[in-house]
Amino acid sequence: MLKAHGYAAKAARSALEPFAFDRRDPGPKDIVISILYSGICHSDIHQARDEWGGAKFPMVPGHEIAGRVVSTGSGVTRFSVGDLAGVGCMVDSCGTCPSCRAGEEQFCESGPVWTYNSIERDGKTLTYGGYSDVIVIREDFALRLPSGLSLPQVAPLLCAGITTFSPLRRFGVREGQEVGVVGLGGLGHMAIKFARAMGARVTVFSTSPSKEEDARRLGAHDFVLTRKEGWEKGMGGRFHLILDAVSANHDLAPYLGSLGLGGSMVLLGVPETPLSFHSFLLISRRRNLTASLIGGLRETQEMLDFCGHHGIASDIELIPIQKVNEAYERTLRGDVRYRFVIDMASLNT
Amino acid sequence: MLKAHGYAAKAARSALEPFAFDRRDPGPKDIVISILYSGICHSDIHQARDEWGGAKFPMVPGHEIAGRVVSTGSGVTRFSVGDLAGVGCMVDSCGTCPSCRAGEEQFCESGPVWTYNSIERDGKTLTYGGYSDVIVIREDFALRLPSGLSLPQVAPLLCAGITTFSPLRRFGVREGQEVGVVGLGGLGHMAIKFARAMGARVTVFSTSPSKEEDARRLGAHDFVLTRKEGWEKGMGGRFHLILDAVSANHDLAPYLGSLGLGGSMVLLGVPETPLSFHSFLLISRRRNLTASLIGGLRETQEMLDFCGHHGIASDIELIPIQKVNEAYERTLRGDVRYRFVIDMASLNT
Repeated sequence: MLKAHGYAAKAARSALEPFAFDRRDPGPKDIVISILYSGICHSDIHQARDEWGGAKFPMVPGHEIAGRVVSTGSGVTRFSVGDLAGVGCMVDSCGTCPSCRAGEEQFCESGPVWTYNSIERDGKTLTYGGYSDVIVIREDFALRLPSGLSLPQVAPLLCAGITTFSPLRRFGVREGQEVGVVGLGGLGHMAIKFARAMGARVTVFSTSPSKEEDARRLGAHDFVLTRKEGWEKGMGGRFHLILDAVSANHDLAPYLGSLGLGGSMVLLGVPETPLSFHSFLLISRRRNLTASLIGGLRETQEMLDFCGHHGIASDIELIPIQKVNEAYERTLRGDVRYRFVIDMASLNT
Repeated sequence: MLKAHGYAAKAARSALEPFAFDRRDPGPKDIVISILYSGICHSDIHQARDEWGGAKFPMVPGHEIAGRVVSTGSGVTRFSVGDLAGVGCMVDSCGTCPSCRAGEEQFCESGPVWTYNSIERDGKTLTYGGYSDVIVIREDFALRLPSGLSLPQVAPLLCAGITTFSPLRRFGVREGQEVGVVGLGGLGHMAIKFARAMGARVTVFSTSPSKEEDARRLGAHDFVLTRKEGWEKGMGGRFHLILDAVSANHDLAPYLGSLGLGGSMVLLGVPETPLSFHSFLLISRRRNLTASLIGGLRETQEMLDFCGHHGIASDIELIPIQKVNEAYERTLRGDVRYRFVIDMASLNT
């Protein structure tokens, strides 16, 4: 077995703490990645605190992993020792169901094997994520990372990046279109960058006036403060696409009403309470409501290549792993612009 | 002015009764259609009883009109005297807004001029619908009707037909796909015929066991009785598209849960109460919820041509106009298979 070190939550109410564990010995199709940077996703916190139920402890969170290949199995063809490599939310899937065959492994009908808090396809081995120094993964589930970008800023692309890129691509966002982004956080700030790079006119909706300057710096053309009652009246139903990155319960009606004919709203979060809105909002302009969940491996690679081509990466705050618990608290307060990334070299300090 | 005779509601609580009125003198771009058949749409009843508000009386309902051209203006190019011609839900629109230019006149940004209970673009003339003997209309808003079909059965295509055809086309329904139809009434029975003709495997969802035989006769492959609790568990999330033709309040969750990856549910009716469902139903399989509202003129003509090619028309019960009030009551009870059509020759008896 391969010795690994990281930080784990031992129980739902525990702070994360140092943890030593074993990774499997790499097989012929596996690569071993020395993890250099690991992003902190809000869903890490939900899972480490068992807020979604079914948490498996000890839990080593982390699914925004950037590192370097340190060994390759005999059957590996896409990676060589020394290559940059990334791991996102998944480390395996059945490979044979219609979703997998369509390159949509995140919807694998047997359920994909998630990077942490999940059971390997052997039915027994718990997966451990990126808050650690090394990971063993089938090369098919590893991503090639763009060179020429700051590597810590690349890590969050593996989840925040693909989560926002996928719906923008699915709806064919292009020059001349109006794209709205609800909520300026880890997801929202990537959505701005991508939509802008695709040529859209980008508007950010936020309840925080303090975010306007950042929204514009990140590429937004317009900023709408949604604390003002009736703000939607000024929108003129002009949006082709609105990405909603807010997981808290909120009223969808003003956003739906801001969509133009045939426009679409895409939920990226899962509010706790049921959605509720009048169907007239859909039929009156033939609008669509849908949602999106990360992206498949092929599309994730496309996103990373797009980032390399356009010089896009995440805005981050780099922290040593010893500050992970503090970073969780700050993430919950929204006090991060826009992603914490753990410098894994700090593990040895 | 052109003298017209028909049946009108004089007030929201009145039965329909004989009514004589004037149509405009036809202009150079107008055609005059002798109305032979006029379908009864559920929305006629809502409007005649002012259930949607803003009703304009006297009201001559009817927007499923089939007839024959009896005169043409000097500038008319698409119709000759003696041609079959139809009129659907609209008789005019601005022609210049983005929706009109896209051939989606039903979403005209100035509001289309509806066939009845609406004001002409002159800002003052009330429109009167198809429960009458003659109509004057811009040739651009008249449809060419397929020959070779029973004309009374063609009339309902102008609303029930396009309402179901449009979303099936929009989602590219084709062979090998699974299409669900919720509710077997005027819309539902057309949806079955179209989806079947496009090659889909068709399932009807209904609360009435008595509808199963008809559903299968109309072309459905499967019938699901939705009075049984938990019926959705047997669906296996297999549907590409579900058309929901039920306007009464009902729970969307089991239908959304029956959609496969990327599947879409299309609302054709507008329930009174807000929709409510959990967003997890959308994100877990990247499903879409949308709605549809009749169709533009170009697509309506395409639908009529499709019907001519495939021998598709509505199942109807032909009635004399003197039975229109009784037909309204029976429509409200769902006692019609599947559309009442008024034989306008009865006006003179």
